[in-house]
Amino acid sequence: VSSAEQDALIRFDFHRRERVGVAEAVLCAGKTTELVERIAWQVHERGQRLLLTRLDPRVHAALSPALQQQLDYEPLSHTAVLGPLPETAGPARVAIVSAGTSDARVAREASRTLAFDAVAVQEIHDVGVAGLWRLLERAEELREIPVVIAVAGMDAALVSVLGGLLSQVVIAVPTSTGYGACRDGETALAASLVSCASGVTVCNIDNGYGAACAALRVLRSLGRLQERAQR
Amino acid sequence: VSSAEQDALIRFDFHRRERVGVAEAVLCAGKTTELVERIAWQVHERGQRLLLTRLDPRVHAALSPALQQQLDYEPLSHTAVLGPLPETAGPARVAIVSAGTSDARVAREASRTLAFDAVAVQEIHDVGVAGLWRLLERAEELREIPVVIAVAGMDAALVSVLGGLLSQVVIAVPTSTGYGACRDGETALAASLVSCASGVTVCNIDNGYGAACAALRVLRSLGRLQERAQR
Amino acid sequence: VSSAEQDALIRFDFHRRERVGVAEAVLCAGKTTELVERIAWQVHERGQRLLLTRLDPRVHAALSPALQQQLDYEPLSHTAVLGPLPETAGPARVAIVSAGTSDARVAREASRTLAFDAVAVQEIHDVGVAGLWRLLERAEELREIPVVIAVAGMDAALVSVLGGLLSQVVIAVPTSTGYGACRDGETALAASLVSCASGVTVCNIDNGYGAACAALRVLRSLGRLQERAQR
Amino acid sequence: VSSAEQDALIRFDFHRRERVGVAEAVLCAGKTTELVERIAWQVHERGQRLLLTRLDPRVHAALSPALQQQLDYEPLSHTAVLGPLPETAGPARVAIVSAGTSDARVAREASRTLAFDAVAVQEIHDVGVAGLWRLLERAEELREIPVVIAVAGMDAALVSVLGGLLSQVVIAVPTSTGYGACRDGETALAASLVSCASGVTVCNIDNGYGAACAALRVLRSLGRLQERAQR
Amino acid sequence: VSSAEQDALIRFDFHRRERVGVAEAVLCAGKTTELVERIAWQVHERGQRLLLTRLDPRVHAALSPALQQQLDYEPLSHTAVLGPLPETAGPARVAIVSAGTSDARVAREASRTLAFDAVAVQEIHDVGVAGLWRLLERAEELREIPVVIAVAGMDAALVSVLGGLLSQVVIAVPTSTGYGACRDGETALAASLVSCASGVTVCNIDNGYGAACAALRVLRSLGRLQERAQR
Amino acid sequence: VSSAEQDALIRFDFHRRERVGVAEAVLCAGKTTELVERIAWQVHERGQRLLLTRLDPRVHAALSPALQQQLDYEPLSHTAVLGPLPETAGPARVAIVSAGTSDARVAREASRTLAFDAVAVQEIHDVGVAGLWRLLERAEELREIPVVIAVAGMDAALVSVLGGLLSQVVIAVPTSTGYGACRDGETALAASLVSCASGVTVCNIDNGYGAACAALRVLRSLGRLQERAQR
Amino acid sequence: VSSAEQDALIRFDFHRRERVGVAEAVLCAGKTTELVERIAWQVHERGQRLLLTRLDPRVHAALSPALQQQLDYEPLSHTAVLGPLPETAGPARVAIVSAGTSDARVAREASRTLAFDAVAVQEIHDVGVAGLWRLLERAEELREIPVVIAVAGMDAALVSVLGGLLSQVVIAVPTSTGYGACRDGETALAASLVSCASGVTVCNIDNGYGAACAALRVLRSLGRLQERAQR
Amino acid sequence: VSSAEQDALIRFDFHRRERVGVAEAVLCAGKTTELVERIAWQVHERGQRLLLTRLDPRVHAALSPALQQQLDYEPLSHTAVLGPLPETAGPARVAIVSAGTSDARVAREASRTLAFDAVAVQEIHDVGVAGLWRLLERAEELREIPVVIAVAGMDAALVSVLGGLLSQVVIAVPTSTGYGACRDGETALAASLVSCASGVTVCNIDNGYGAACAALRVLRSLGRLQERAQR
Repeated sequence: VSSAEQDALIRFDFHRRERVGVAEAVLCAGKTTELVERIAWQVHERGQRLLLTRLDPRVHAALSPALQQQLDYEPLSHTAVLGPLPETAGPARVAIVSAGTSDARVAREASRTLAFDAVAVQEIHDVGVAGLWRLLERAEELREIPVVIAVAGMDAALVSVLGGLLSQVVIAVPTSTGYGACRDGETALAASLVSCASGVTVCNIDNGYGAACAALRVLRSLGRLQERAQR
Repeated sequence: VSSAEQDALIRFDFHRRERVGVAEAVLCAGKTTELVERIAWQVHERGQRLLLTRLDPRVHAALSPALQQQLDYEPLSHTAVLGPLPETAGPARVAIVSAGTSDARVAREASRTLAFDAVAVQEIHDVGVAGLWRLLERAEELREIPVVIAVAGMDAALVSVLGGLLSQVVIAVPTSTGYGACRDGETALAASLVSCASGVTVCNIDNGYGAACAALRVLRSLGRLQERAQR
Repeated sequence: VSSAEQDALIRFDFHRRERVGVAEAVLCAGKTTELVERIAWQVHERGQRLLLTRLDPRVHAALSPALQQQLDYEPLSHTAVLGPLPETAGPARVAIVSAGTSDARVAREASRTLAFDAVAVQEIHDVGVAGLWRLLERAEELREIPVVIAVAGMDAALVSVLGGLLSQVVIAVPTSTGYGACRDGETALAASLVSCASGVTVCNIDNGYGAACAALRVLRSLGRLQERAQR
Repeated sequence: VSSAEQDALIRFDFHRRERVGVAEAVLCAGKTTELVERIAWQVHERGQRLLLTRLDPRVHAALSPALQQQLDYEPLSHTAVLGPLPETAGPARVAIVSAGTSDARVAREASRTLAFDAVAVQEIHDVGVAGLWRLLERAEELREIPVVIAVAGMDAALVSVLGGLLSQVVIAVPTSTGYGACRDGETALAASLVSCASGVTVCNIDNGYGAACAALRVLRSLGRLQERAQR
Repeated sequence: VSSAEQDALIRFDFHRRERVGVAEAVLCAGKTTELVERIAWQVHERGQRLLLTRLDPRVHAALSPALQQQLDYEPLSHTAVLGPLPETAGPARVAIVSAGTSDARVAREASRTLAFDAVAVQEIHDVGVAGLWRLLERAEELREIPVVIAVAGMDAALVSVLGGLLSQVVIAVPTSTGYGACRDGETALAASLVSCASGVTVCNIDNGYGAACAALRVLRSLGRLQERAQR
Repeated sequence: VSSAEQDALIRFDFHRRERVGVAEAVLCAGKTTELVERIAWQVHERGQRLLLTRLDPRVHAALSPALQQQLDYEPLSHTAVLGPLPETAGPARVAIVSAGTSDARVAREASRTLAFDAVAVQEIHDVGVAGLWRLLERAEELREIPVVIAVAGMDAALVSVLGGLLSQVVIAVPTSTGYGACRDGETALAASLVSCASGVTVCNIDNGYGAACAALRVLRSLGRLQERAQR
Repeated sequence: VSSAEQDALIRFDFHRRERVGVAEAVLCAGKTTELVERIAWQVHERGQRLLLTRLDPRVHAALSPALQQQLDYEPLSHTAVLGPLPETAGPARVAIVSAGTSDARVAREASRTLAFDAVAVQEIHDVGVAGLWRLLERAEELREIPVVIAVAGMDAALVSVLGGLLSQVVIAVPTSTGYGACRDGETALAASLVSCASGVTVCNIDNGYGAACAALRVLRSLGRLQERAQR
Repeated sequence: VSSAEQDALIRFDFHRRERVGVAEAVLCAGKTTELVERIAWQVHERGQRLLLTRLDPRVHAALSPALQQQLDYEPLSHTAVLGPLPETAGPARVAIVSAGTSDARVAREASRTLAFDAVAVQEIHDVGVAGLWRLLERAEELREIPVVIAVAGMDAALVSVLGGLLSQVVIAVPTSTGYGACRDGETALAASLVSCASGVTVCNIDNGYGAACAALRVLRSLGRLQERAQR
C-alpha cells in the first residue's frame, strides 16, 4: 500500500488542543505498523508533539529506526511520546492509586498522559482493600490532592473505599486484571458504576488515557471558573 | 385440582434432617397457594416442623385461617415457621452483617433459618463501606464470632472489606438491591466471587436461606472434627 | 414491625456532609413505606435536611400526612426534600442537557440534587443528535458553564457530540429510555463508556443523583485547587 | 483429503447472480487452505468470477502460485478477486464513510464488493464525531449520493449523526474497533440498532461485504421501480 | 406540573420532514399522559400532522376527549394519527410479511407509518417457515414489490428464506414474540443480523416504525437516482 | 509427571457401553498430550476400542509413533479411532445435513462417531437456506431416513426448514461458524432452541459427537420398543 | 377490529398433521383474546381438534361461554383441548420426570400434548437430585420406557443423572423455576446443553409442548424403522 | 525498568498470615517475568515462604536459574512454592473431588495451597456424574472428612450430587473445562450457585487457590469454636 493511499485513510485532528484542550492521541491497537509510522511522521512534519497509546512492544520494535529514535517509549504502559516531554513542578494535582501490581500498567498510562500535558502526578501502587491498612495510612496524603484516579480490577472495592474516604473528584478506571467471573474487567466496571460511594464516575476498562483526559477536563473547568471569577 | 392430584406432585423429603442435617424447607415462590397449603398440612400431619421461605404476604393472606394460625410469619423476610421455634442461648455462633437497610430482608431470611435450627445469631445492619467507620467500630466484636454472613447488594464492597479484616469463615450473599448496572444482583454476585479477599465463598443472589444452610454445614463439620478428635 | 425493630435496621450517616461533602440521601426504592417514614423522622428529629430519591408517587401518597406536609415532592423526578431548599444565585455552575423529553425525569433528579446543595443549574432539554441543529445553537452558551451533565438514552450519541464540542468536565448519565436493543439503558451505558470523545466519564443508568454528586465533587476539587493557588 | 472428498463438501451456487442478483462470494475464514483453493478452481473452471472475503494474508500466501496469479489480492480488506474487475464510471452511487482509520479495513471490504459488481463508490475516511467539523464539511457532497454506508466502531455515534443529516438510505456497519466495553463491536452494533435517527438499518459487525450487498439490493429495487414506471 | 413547565421539556422538530424527509413521530412509551397530550396540541396548533407510536390503550383512554376526537387510533399496532390520513393508490411499493399472527402488531405499526406517508402497502401475515408452502405460494407476488419488510420473532428463519428468494431490498424487523431462549427478541435480532442470505439489513426489535422509515429512505434514494438519471 | 501419578487422575468407565449403550469417548481438548497417550494405552491394554474427539493435529503429531500407528486419524473432524472400525451395511439410518462447507468439520465428527458404532450414515453438505433449492431437491431422500442431524451455524435457518419439512427425529447441532453477532455459535444455538418448527431438539455448539450419541439413543429406544412388542 | 380483519392475520396450517405428523397447536401467549377465540372457531368449523397452550386463566375466563364449553381446560399446565381427547392404553411409551413440584406445570404441558396425540404417559414428580434416593428407586421402572422427558430448573442436575442412568432417548426441558443466578431458566438450559451425560438433547426453557413433539418424532421414527425392518 | 522502579509497584503484605491466617500468595498471571522475579526475591530476603499460582511454564522457564532452584514447581497446577513444604500427618482434613481428568489441574492447585499450609488432603479424581457409581462407592469415605471441595466443569452436576449426599461443608469450584455453552466455566459457575442441594457455597471459576483458602477459614473457625467450647 502506498503512502498516498495510507494518507487517504488519515484525517488527523491537528487543532484538537485548541478546540477541546488536549492534543489528539493515537490508539495504536488495531492499526498496522505502516499506518502508525505514517501518522507519526505526519505529525512530526507539522512540528507537533504526539502521544501514542497501546503501542505493543512488537509493533514498536517494527517501526523504522528513524522513528524509534524520535520516540520516548515506556514499556510498562505501552505508551510512546513523540517530541519533548514538558517539565512538571509543584505539588501533585492528580493522584493515581492502583489496587494491585497488575493494575500498574493502566495507572502508568494515565500518568504518562498527564505528564505529556505537564501535570504533576503522585502514583500510589498496590494498596488494594484486602490489606486495608495499606490504603488507610495514605488517606491524609490523598485528601490534599484535588483529583484522584482509582485503578482497580477484580471487585474494584478500592473504588468504593476511596469514594467513601474522600470528598474530591474520584475517577474510576476498572481493569481487566483477573480471570473467570472478572470477565475481562466487566465485573470491575459494573461494580465501579454501582459503587455505594456516590459521585464516583467511571471510564472504560483499562482506559488510563481516558481517565487522564477526564482529569484534564477538571483542571480546565477550574480555569473556566477562575476566569469567570475575574470578570 | 383435587388433593390426591396435588399429592402426586409432591414427594416430601421427610428424612433430610437425618441425612444432610437440615430439614427440607419449602420455597413458596412459583408454587400455587393450594400446593403450599397441601405441603404444610402433609408435614403437620407427620408432626414435623417446617420452614417456608419466599412466602409472599398475599399468598400468606390467602392461606386457610387454620393454617395461618399454625404459622409464625415474619413480614420483613417473608418466612414462616410451622411448629415451635426452639430456644437459643449462649454467645452468637453466626454473625449476619448487611450493607444497607434494603438488604435487611435477605439478612433476616438467614437469621430466621438459623433460629429454626436453634443457632444463636447476631444481626448487624446498615454498615456499608460508603461509611467505613460504621463497620470498623464493630470489627472486634465480629472477630469473636466463628461464622460471618455478609449480605450486600450493588458493588458488594462490604464482602471484600470483611474478608480482609477477618480470618474465619465469611459467606457472601449478594442481593438484588439497586438498579441499572446492579443488574438485579448480578454485579454484586460477580464482585463477591472475584473478591480481592481470598477464601470468601458465595451463595446465590438474595439466598439468605442458602447462606444459613452453609453456616449450618460449618457447624456440623465442627461436630465431625470433634468426634474424630475423641476417637 | 415495631419502631424499635425498624431502628435496628437503620444506621444513618449523620456526619456524611462533613466527611465527604454531601449529606446522605435516601434511595426509597426497595424500602418499605414504614422504613422511609422512620428514616425521615429520625433525620427530622436531628434537625437536619434530607433528600429522598426514587420516591414512587404511590409510596409518597402512603406516607403519613404529617410527613407529607414536611416534604417538597417533585413528581417528574420522584424526589422529595425534607426541610428548606436553599436559595441559589449567580450564573449556572452546572448545565444539565437531555437528549429527549423521556430523559427529563433523570435530568431533573440531577438538578434537584444540586438545588438541595444550593448550586445554580441550567437545564436544556430535548436536544438529541437526530436534530443536531438544536444542540449546535446552544454550544456557545454551554461553553461558559464549568460542568456539563449529559443525559441520554438509546445510542447516547449526545454524549459523544457534547464531548467533542466542549473541553470542560462532561459527565454522562445513560438512561433506560427506549426498548429492544436499548436493553434498559445498557446500550446507552456502554456507548457512553466507549465514547469517541475522550475524557467523558460515566454514571450508572438513570443515576441523575450520582451525576449531581459527581458535579459537587468537581466543584469541591475546584475549591481545593483555588485554595492551593492562593497559598 | 482427496479432491473428490473436498468436492463432496462443496455445493457452489453458480446461479445465485441470476436468482438474487449478486454472485456468491466465499467467506474464507473457517475454511482450510485446501478448501479455498478447491472452490476457486471450481469457479475458475466454469469461467465465472469470484469474490473471496476474509482471506487472511497467511492463507493467501499458502495458496498455490498458480491460483495466486489469478487473484487480485487487497491486503487492507483481506479480499481477493478471481477474474477481471469491471470498469466503473459516472458519479458515485454509493458513499462509504468510516469513523476512524482502524475502520478502513471494513469500509474497503464494502468498496471492493461494490467494485466487483461495477458500482462507482466514494470512500471518505476518519471523519468520526469527536471532530464533528470533519464530517460536516462533507455533508453537501454526501447528500448527492443515493446510498450511504456508515462504518464505525466504539459508540458508533457517526451512524446517528449521518442518519440525522441525510434523508437517503443509510446502512450502518458496526465494527469491532476498540477494547473493553466496546465488546468486540457489540456496543457499536447495539448503538446503531437503537440510533436516535430513524430509518437507519444495520448489518453484522465488521460485515462490509453484507453492507455492499444491501446497497446492491437498493440499486436493484430502483431498477424494479423504474421498470414498473415504464410499464 | 404546569403547561409552561411541560413546554420546557419539549423541543419539537417541526422541520424534520424538509430535512430528512419524514415528519417526526412521537414515541409515547415512557412519556406521561400529560406530555403526550401537550405535544399533540403543540403540533395541532401548528396545523401539522403527527404520528404517535406505542400509545398504550390505557394512555389513549386517559387523553382528553377533545384530543381523542382528533386521533385515528388503531388498537392492534397501538398507533394513532393526528390529522387526515392521505390517500394511497397504485400497486404496492412496500410488502410487509409477518411470520406469525403474534407478529402482526409490529407489521401493522410499519404499515401505519407508511400509510401516514401515503405509500401503498401489501400486508401478508402468518407465513412462517414451519409451513414453508404458505410463503412459497406468495413468492411471485413478492418479487414484484420493490421493498420487502420481513417481520419475525423466535428464530426469524423467515428473514433468511425471504432473503434467499428475493433480490430486492429486504428489511428485517425481529420481534419479541416467544419466550425462554427467544430472550425478548434478542435471538431473532441476532439471527437476522447473521442471516445466511446476504444483503438483508436489520432494525431494532419490534421497531415497525423504524423499518417503515428505512423503506421511505429507499423510496427517496430511488427518487434521487431518477433525478440524477434525468439530468 | 510419572505414569502412576497420571493414572491417579484417570478413572476410565470401561463398562459404559453395557450401561448406557455407547463406549466412553475421550475429549482430548483440555488434556495434556501425556494424559491422552496414557488413557489410550490403558484402553488398548484392556483390548477395547476408543474414540478420541477434538484431537488437535498438533497434539496428534506429538503422540508417540507407536500410538499414532494404532490410530485412524481423520483431519477434517479431528477425530481418531483406536482399534478396528466396524463394517456398516444397508440403507442409511442417520442423515447428517450441513448448511455450509465450514460446518462439515462438525458433521464429520457426528458421522465418525456413528461409524465407530457401526451405523450407516448419509452425509449431505452445503445445502443452506440462502439457496433453498439445494435443500428442497434432497427432501424426498431425507424423508426416508429415520434420524436427521442438522448441522448449521450463523442463523441456523436450516434447522427450522428441515424441521418444517420432515416429521421424523431432527437433532440440531449449532456450529460456531461465522463472526460478529454469530457470537461463537450462541446465535445458532438460541435460534435452534426457539425454532418455529416444533419438536426439534438441540445439542451443544459444535457437538457433533453429542448429536451422534443422541441418534444412538433413538436407535436403542427402537430396540426397546421392539423387545416390548415381542413380549 | 372486525372478524374479517382478524382472519387476515391468520393462516392456519390445517394440514400440518399430514405433513409433519402433529396438528398445529396455538400458543396463546402474545395473542389477544379475540384472536384466540377466532382461531378456535375457525378450527372448530373445520371439524378439527385443537390444542391451546399457555392459555392464561384470565384469558380463558374472558373467552365466550360458548367456546369455554367446547374446551377441556387444565389449570396447572394452562392448556386447553378443543374436541375429544383420545383414549390411551397399554404401557407408557413416554415417561415425564420432574425435579420439583414447581416444575410440574411444564411436565403437565408435555403430558397433555402427548395425551392429545393418544400416547400413554407415566408422570413422576419431585425426584430432584438433592434427595437422590427418590430417583434411584424409580430407575428400574424408567429403564422400561422408550422415551424419557426430564423436566428440571435451577441446576438441572436431574438431566445429567438421568442421562447417566439410562441408555434410551432423554429429552431435557429446562424450566424457569428458581431465582437469581437461575436467570429465568438460562442456567438450567445451559447446564442441560453441556450435560456430562452424552446424547441428551434439549428443548427451549419451559417448553413442555416442544418436548412432547420431540417425543412424537421419536415414536414416528421408530415406526419408520420398524416399517423398514419389515420390508 | 530498574529494580527500584519495580519495587515502587509492589507493596507486599508480609503480615497477612498474622492478620487473616494465610500468607499472601502471588497470582503470576498478568505480571511480567521481571515483576514475579522481584517479588519472589523480596519475600526470600525476608526469610518468608511464598506460594506462586498460575505460573505459566514459559514464565517459569524464563525466571533466573537462581530463583528456579529455590522453587518447587508443579506443572499440572502451575504452582510453585518458595521455601520448604511442611510435613502433613494424620487423616485428611480436606477432600478434593474432581469430575473429570481435565479438572485435575484446578483440584491440584487447591491441594498445593493446602499442603503449603500443612493440611492433610485426600484427592479423588474423575468421578463425574455420568458414571454415578464411581462417586457413590466413595461416599462413605467422604462422609468422614470435615471439608469437601468439589471441582467440576460443564454442568457441575457433581456439586449437587455431593451436596445432596453429604452434610458437612461443600465448597464448589466451577472450572472452565468444556466448550460452547460451557462458556468458559460460566455455566458451571451458575449451576453451582443455584445447586438444588442447599448450603453449598461457590468460588470463582478455576479458583482452586480460593477454595483452599475457604477451607482454611473453616478449619480456623472450627478452632475458634473449639476454643470457645473449652472456655
